[in-house]
Amino acid sequence: MNLPIGFRYAAVYAGIRKQERDDLALIVPDQPAAAAAVFTTNVVQAAPVRLARKHLRASKGRAAAILINAGNANCATRTGDAVALASCKAAAKALNAKPQQIVPASTGVIGVELEPKLITAAIPHLASKLAPEHFEDVARAILTTDTRMKVASEEVKLRNGTVRIAGMTKGAGMIHPNMATTLGFVMTDAAIEAKHLQPMLAHATERSYNSLTVDGDMSTNDTVVLLAGGASGVAPDAKERKVVEEVLTWVMESLAEQIAADGEGARKLIVVRTVGFKTTDDARQVARAVANSPLVKTAIAGSDPNWGRILCAAGYSGIAFDPRKVDIYLQRTLVCKDGLAADFDEAALKQKLDEAEVRIRIELKGSGKSEARFFTCDLTEGYIQINGSYRT
Amino acid sequence: MNLPIGFRYAAVYAGIRKQERDDLALIVPDQPAAAAAVFTTNVVQAAPVRLARKHLRASKGRAAAILINAGNANCATRTGDAVALASCKAAAKALNAKPQQIVPASTGVIGVELEPKLITAAIPHLASKLAPEHFEDVARAILTTDTRMKVASEEVKLRNGTVRIAGMTKGAGMIHPNMATTLGFVMTDAAIEAKHLQPMLAHATERSYNSLTVDGDMSTNDTVVLLAGGASGVAPDAKERKVVEEVLTWVMESLAEQIAADGEGARKLIVVRTVGFKTTDDARQVARAVANSPLVKTAIAGSDPNWGRILCAAGYSGIAFDPRKVDIYLQRTLVCKDGLAADFDEAALKQKLDEAEVRIRIELKGSGKSEARFFTCDLTEGYIQINGSYRT
Repeated sequence: MNLPIGFRYAAVYAGIRKQERDDLALIVPDQPAAAAAVFTTNVVQAAPVRLARKHLRASKGRAAAILINAGNANCATRTGDAVALASCKAAAKALNAKPQQIVPASTGVIGVELEPKLITAAIPHLASKLAPEHFEDVARAILTTDTRMKVASEEVKLRNGTVRIAGMTKGAGMIHPNMATTLGFVMTDAAIEAKHLQPMLAHATERSYNSLTVDGDMSTNDTVVLLAGGASGVAPDAKERKVVEEVLTWVMESLAEQIAADGEGARKLIVVRTVGFKTTDDARQVARAVANSPLVKTAIAGSDPNWGRILCAAGYSGIAFDPRKVDIYLQRTLVCKDGLAADFDEAALKQKLDEAEVRIRIELKGSGKSEARFFTCDLTEGYIQINGSYRT
Repeated sequence: MNLPIGFRYAAVYAGIRKQERDDLALIVPDQPAAAAAVFTTNVVQAAPVRLARKHLRASKGRAAAILINAGNANCATRTGDAVALASCKAAAKALNAKPQQIVPASTGVIGVELEPKLITAAIPHLASKLAPEHFEDVARAILTTDTRMKVASEEVKLRNGTVRIAGMTKGAGMIHPNMATTLGFVMTDAAIEAKHLQPMLAHATERSYNSLTVDGDMSTNDTVVLLAGGASGVAPDAKERKVVEEVLTWVMESLAEQIAADGEGARKLIVVRTVGFKTTDDARQVARAVANSPLVKTAIAGSDPNWGRILCAAGYSGIAFDPRKVDIYLQRTLVCKDGLAADFDEAALKQKLDEAEVRIRIELKGSGKSEARFFTCDLTEGYIQINGSYRT
């Protein structure tokens, strides 16, 4: 990976998880970086989410570090606020920064008290390990039920030089759109002010994390943070920022796709594409309904070309359309034409549905030109097994 | 069961299902009955749904029969409308009625052509078997992936005599509120005009079928029909109709509960109760979000008292509330007080969660007096197994 310059990373095991695996991590720009963030819209919000908002307001979008713990969400506990604050203070001390320049994030079980000393005691050691090459250590430390690390990077040549963007993410269940789903941390060495960074992140989030659903649940802790450290010395102008925004979107789309592909129990990534709708919102709503349908997701799990369930889910999306104007493709095979069964080779298609990536395309004719894309995964017995005993 | 008088029933195997099991059924009042119905709100509607609406309009709410086939939804097929009409005509001929007095309903796979001769050829034999005691034969014939028959009945003594209400229903997956979920047929021997019957059915549906979710999917075929034959000779007045409406609601609540308890792969009925909200709509929306949450449903499957997921689902319901004002009970054990972990005996509660009926109570304090109830079921590996290979 071609990492942005000017960032250091570290991860250690602080004893938060039962299992001995890194659970505390830092992402630190060489100089306080411009920062933007999006958070869960759940009315139940974890203490670190509330504190991160507060800190970014107080620091006017400058961050000296992102401090992440996995294994405990630090949510719906008596001491949550105090724990989050004590953690940030300890990190600020170790990094010679102000507490409001620390952006906290947590993931894990809800409603279990988190012992602050586990974090504060581990921070000096954590800070001593900071190094540019520990990017993947952090990417692994933030994982919970994920089965694999999720990272992505891009670089783009601008008029005054090259800038790099790299991101990491976690999240396998409790994933739902409308939100900066799960945890995501994206770093760039471009020099961009915080005020320009926030709309760029919002745009990229809409097309990535907010176009992603695993099970329709939305977490109390969802956080995506974007840091622009500026170490490249390249400050994109307004036009170039659109280019950087586009590349940022690619990175975040890749992260979102990786989350869907690693959905709890998932064996297949499902990409739902809707085209020909009046508005993007309409197209998104239909794509979301299909991506959220357990009947569609179990059919894909069983490699069953049951297009009736796709048409049915589109039908209850809340968007009005004439079913006789709908064509549906599964793995580029036309399975439903004008709302009716198309003539296709079922055995051949079943085989194509065994692939690791399944594409559903819903085409509305004569209505409009707007389209949307949603990422999800198949629904298997594995999801049940993971979630029936996650806490105990 | 204490069945309403003046109705006859019959079921036969017409060859629609692969498996040799009754798949065609009739419900026939001795005289054309007042009829009310609620249907799916999906924009994709099966041919029998469209035709049933049309027939009830044309007949001004008088029905000579309900004709049901299972095994094929008669939806999204080239010949759907013609098949539904031919079926009604054949039934009308056999029963000496008008085609528009026949209310058709279908359930089964979508998008597969249905051979009309299977139905039209079987109808004379079906009509010859009509008898009051075949109620349960019909209740069994309409089942698809259901594991058991679902029937309920009540009687109520009014000033001028006793009236009886009995219903049958089917539906294990593709169940979702906002709708006359799945198939349901309710008969009464009270004499009530069609114009009074429809609001009674709407009221009872809201508190029963529309308070039910198995997997969040909504079918193209959902139909609930209420027939009032009048054979008791008892015509309730306006006040008494409120009593009948209440008893009708009990019958339909029982049917809805039986559907949830028999949800595809379900081992447990879950009843979500929300109290203390500003409006009934708010209470319903929170109850629905919790009842729809796969994370809550898998936790219950695993007898895991993971109240954090319940609080979290309430939090993303779209209803604003202060989490610190929320108490949550599981099986009447306080698990979350003021939005935080309550002190409870986890081992004892886990044992209580092994029961066949699990009660979740969410209490909002200091906000209002409105409440709601939702029925659902746990989410198990069985759901995946059933739905991954339903069609093939």
